[in-house]
Amino acid sequence: MKIGNLLEQVREKKPLVHHITNYVTVNDCANVTLGIGASPVMADAIEEAADISAISSAVVLNIGTLNERKNQSMIAAGKSANAKGIPVVLDPVGVGASKFRNDTVARLIDEVKLTVLRGNISEIKFMAGLDAETKGVDASESDTVNVDDAGQIAKGLAKKLNCVVVISGATDIVSDGNKIVYIENGHQMLGNLTGTGCMCSSLIGSFCGALPEDSLYATVAAMVCMGTAGEIAYEKVGHLGGGSFHVVLHDAISKMDAETFERRAKFHEAS
Amino acid sequence: MKIGNLLEQVREKKPLVHHITNYVTVNDCANVTLGIGASPVMADAIEEAADISAISSAVVLNIGTLNERKNQSMIAAGKSANAKGIPVVLDPVGVGASKFRNDTVARLIDEVKLTVLRGNISEIKFMAGLDAETKGVDASESDTVNVDDAGQIAKGLAKKLNCVVVISGATDIVSDGNKIVYIENGHQMLGNLTGTGCMCSSLIGSFCGALPEDSLYATVAAMVCMGTAGEIAYEKVGHLGGGSFHVVLHDAISKMDAETFERRAKFHEAS
Amino acid sequence: MKIGNLLEQVREKKPLVHHITNYVTVNDCANVTLGIGASPVMADAIEEAADISAISSAVVLNIGTLNERKNQSMIAAGKSANAKGIPVVLDPVGVGASKFRNDTVARLIDEVKLTVLRGNISEIKFMAGLDAETKGVDASESDTVNVDDAGQIAKGLAKKLNCVVVISGATDIVSDGNKIVYIENGHQMLGNLTGTGCMCSSLIGSFCGALPEDSLYATVAAMVCMGTAGEIAYEKVGHLGGGSFHVVLHDAISKMDAETFERRAKFHEAS
Repeated sequence: MKIGNLLEQVREKKPLVHHITNYVTVNDCANVTLGIGASPVMADAIEEAADISAISSAVVLNIGTLNERKNQSMIAAGKSANAKGIPVVLDPVGVGASKFRNDTVARLIDEVKLTVLRGNISEIKFMAGLDAETKGVDASESDTVNVDDAGQIAKGLAKKLNCVVVISGATDIVSDGNKIVYIENGHQMLGNLTGTGCMCSSLIGSFCGALPEDSLYATVAAMVCMGTAGEIAYEKVGHLGGGSFHVVLHDAISKMDAETFERRAKFHEAS
Repeated sequence: MKIGNLLEQVREKKPLVHHITNYVTVNDCANVTLGIGASPVMADAIEEAADISAISSAVVLNIGTLNERKNQSMIAAGKSANAKGIPVVLDPVGVGASKFRNDTVARLIDEVKLTVLRGNISEIKFMAGLDAETKGVDASESDTVNVDDAGQIAKGLAKKLNCVVVISGATDIVSDGNKIVYIENGHQMLGNLTGTGCMCSSLIGSFCGALPEDSLYATVAAMVCMGTAGEIAYEKVGHLGGGSFHVVLHDAISKMDAETFERRAKFHEAS
Repeated sequence: MKIGNLLEQVREKKPLVHHITNYVTVNDCANVTLGIGASPVMADAIEEAADISAISSAVVLNIGTLNERKNQSMIAAGKSANAKGIPVVLDPVGVGASKFRNDTVARLIDEVKLTVLRGNISEIKFMAGLDAETKGVDASESDTVNVDDAGQIAKGLAKKLNCVVVISGATDIVSDGNKIVYIENGHQMLGNLTGTGCMCSSLIGSFCGALPEDSLYATVAAMVCMGTAGEIAYEKVGHLGGGSFHVVLHDAISKMDAETFERRAKFHEAS
């Protein structure tokens, strides 16, 4: 597989990616979606959520700033996508931090068939039914496990939910329940910028929207894309601080080309 | 008419511009409003929408992330502005993409007298009752028409709604139903950044708030302003990517002066 | 007191700061919270507001884009914080501009014990029961008073509400009802960027979350931090415009170190 080709597919097909997402990082989500070559639409009203999903190529559900009204729209959008065979990405932001988040995610995975689930280690451990000490929306240090254990957690949950599972972290892990892909791209400054997780989910939606038949590698490509952009941003302006890093991260995504992507990608598979 | 003078009027009068707008691009809308010299206020609760409009110099209604609650506030704000003779700008984001958007816009134009309506070609074609293939919130390529036809569409709709109509695109078109103004400023990178349409609507609100007696040229000035800022941003940092372009677009708006504005403006009139 | 030490305390303790805030400036609030070394969580649903506050180290309530649903969540979050002795910061954005804002703030201070109240001179004058001509969310020029009078207004209101009161302006004023601290850091470009007030409130939440036993100097440190970052941003890129200033403001906060902080801080006390 030439991972650079996957990027070219996104730019060529320009998939419409419907987001029901939080208001904290939504602007960044829209801009990375445009930056990678897809087209974002954000529509969370129950009166149109299903209609917009039905004309989209992928649906991204993000519970960052959830409320009962949005939750119903997420279910309606997810079901509408399921009915049409459109990929659905779930970002269970902060699950474990409140009963309301836990109940919302439980309803979502009960009613909607996911294509990809992406979270940090605290969120994915919680989803896997393991002890997790979720502290707000950032991964808790006490939840850190070694990379091999994380791989098995992702694989087990992927098998259980019959979808691709991603654990974002120093090493990103992607599993479809069969293969496990370990991605070594990225930089720790990504963890000091709000929304880099949400932006990963938008990129996953963009790649899956263009490549619905291969959600495992579409997801790997999306994670490599964010990791590589983080490395480029760090190399160029990391010394200046978080504001410049934020700007150049968007530069790097919008200027990403197949050759750079291919050359910088660092991942390997196991099972 | 010296278009540079219009800019000076905004900076001098500092109009308060009430926005009921989407949560995707609202920060950029607030910052361009401040950048051009006006003062933004965002208030969408039904309990205060009419009160805030009544103390403002212009009202901008944007349906990007609409919901039933906000729709009622938009109508209340619009009626309040109408009662006081305050200009009302409508940005019908994504109209045509769902029945809910279509119904919302129909109610708005039924209950509120607009001063300016601004959209992309897909949105304006839909509003004019023509075949349009709205795909999310971006203009659909299949909706592209030649510039003269677009001018006639804008003029016809302006006459019908008795307001100024703007079609944003490679050539921006502004008509009051009598004159048609074609604006050649701008750069295609504006189309790869989320919210540049919304920001145009905020600038239109800012100029109309300062120049309520001349909504046609206030609107032309606003569109020239965004186009010129886009050109400057492209010239300075377009090669770096979308993040830097975004930043320098705000720089250019906040540093815009009457002389640069006058010198760079490229527009001509027809009928 | 070494003010640089307070900064180190934030970076060491990484307090979780729960925000119920507006959707205009929320991304900037999250990023300054991360930049200074704390961890933001934004959760405004009534179903979880109290739960999230209970696991946080500080709560920031901001009425920028209030609505009845959020208002109830703010009260629930504030009460939950009060019950646990967690600091509560209130930013009464635009109070005075509508009856709804006034009523909301009255209910909040009636039901929730505040630790810090931060506003511009128009907002604080209104809260103190003085004549104020609030024009939207920016301070009105006609409300300007001399620095000594402002100090007395802050002190009187602090005594009345039994909390720390901050008036943001060219000179920032902080009083606990006993001491008055005058801070001379800052730059006027901060007033041309949306959200710098909201960001101050996030920094106050971050410092108070790390230093709950000393809300006066925690608040002074937060205001010095924003002022100093504004000076650095102006020195580096002020000539370029508002977009670059915005970026470098975030750089300066994320790169702030105890030595720079200590050296640049300009404040003095009176009573």
